[in-house]
Amino acid sequence: MASPAEPVSRRTRPAKDPLSRQSILDAAMTLIREHGVNAVSLRHVAAQVETGPASLYAYFGNRDILLAHVLDAAYSHVQLVDTDDERDWREALAATIVHTIETLAEYPGLGAVALGSIPVLPGALRLAEHELALMEAGGVSAERATLAIDLIAQFAASAAVERNVRLGRDDSSSERGRVRAAYERADMERFPRVARSASLLTDPDDSARRDFSIEVLLRGIEG
Amino acid sequence: MASPAEPVSRRTRPAKDPLSRQSILDAAMTLIREHGVNAVSLRHVAAQVETGPASLYAYFGNRDILLAHVLDAAYSHVQLVDTDDERDWREALAATIVHTIETLAEYPGLGAVALGSIPVLPGALRLAEHELALMEAGGVSAERATLAIDLIAQFAASAAVERNVRLGRDDSSSERGRVRAAYERADMERFPRVARSASLLTDPDDSARRDFSIEVLLRGIEG
Repeated sequence: MASPAEPVSRRTRPAKDPLSRQSILDAAMTLIREHGVNAVSLRHVAAQVETGPASLYAYFGNRDILLAHVLDAAYSHVQLVDTDDERDWREALAATIVHTIETLAEYPGLGAVALGSIPVLPGALRLAEHELALMEAGGVSAERATLAIDLIAQFAASAAVERNVRLGRDDSSSERGRVRAAYERADMERFPRVARSASLLTDPDDSARRDFSIEVLLRGIEG
Repeated sequence: MASPAEPVSRRTRPAKDPLSRQSILDAAMTLIREHGVNAVSLRHVAAQVETGPASLYAYFGNRDILLAHVLDAAYSHVQLVDTDDERDWREALAATIVHTIETLAEYPGLGAVALGSIPVLPGALRLAEHELALMEAGGVSAERATLAIDLIAQFAASAAVERNVRLGRDDSSSERGRVRAAYERADMERFPRVARSASLLTDPDDSARRDFSIEVLLRGIEG
């Protein structure tokens, strides 16, 4: 509680939360979760925290910097899964990767921000540290594990992008039928394996594909 | 040569190529190669082929459809590498993946179009057929090979996105020094492995990372 001697800023009135990095970041994350990265400008975020874009620039120099911090806040929310009596390092790492994809996919467009971003903020370091610890427990060499960090981040980000694209499309089962028909009609002379594999290519659902991909990554990383 | 009896359209005059799907596609690809997907509208493409956007709609119903065909034309240009006396199926597949990344990266933004796109056009089928043949030669089961097609496409597309992002940034060696310094400064209590691995995390260049990732994928796909 403010003592009577303290100046009481208009900003501390209950009707209007004090402007802070955290409140700006929270507002940006709420907007992105609802509307996606591409629909959110600094102007929108400023309106949400009842200030002007110029005030935001004092906290985040430009939109890219704000997005980098939104991404890192998302990384910091990823549920880290550890080894236990029932889970070895592979299962713990696989579950952590699944949580990474799910967390990124909650913010449409954030996967694209993640692709090619260089992870130097604390949320990304926390995730990297956890993954390095799991791979170390699995006996993966430090050389392979550090390279794998990058590949896992690329995979999780691109999987989140794909999931957002698919959710934006038609009902996936009718879509799958359409695609399967296209493969079945493929020119048998030029594309015999594609035509023969029409059902194998289209039957697995998104989570089966995701689990296969993660299994491939972990098996390959183990070397 | 047109016989005197044939009507000569204004469009066949040498100064203006006849409008065709191929000429529109060629124009779009040239524009995208130079300016990137995001900077190219149907209006730009129409101007390039000296017609109006309305004429383009007769060939490609909207921008997304045009981009899907640009993507497929890019896939159709990927150099397919086959096995030979010096190259087993793994090496042939690795080289084909490298060519896929390089071809997509020639068209900034096309990797993002590829992510989440469903490959049903002939260029994508040609690439899938080739990859299936190589995996078949390597004794990979049809179940794994068909799932792997998807994972390889996702990897190549996201690698192209990352490459375009990196090329748009500062000189990568000074960037790498900056990132390495950030890892070295990481909180040793919370992120000991990251801090200790600063040089391992930052030393490998783009092609070393790419080759590691492809090795992981192939090893994991083989199962």
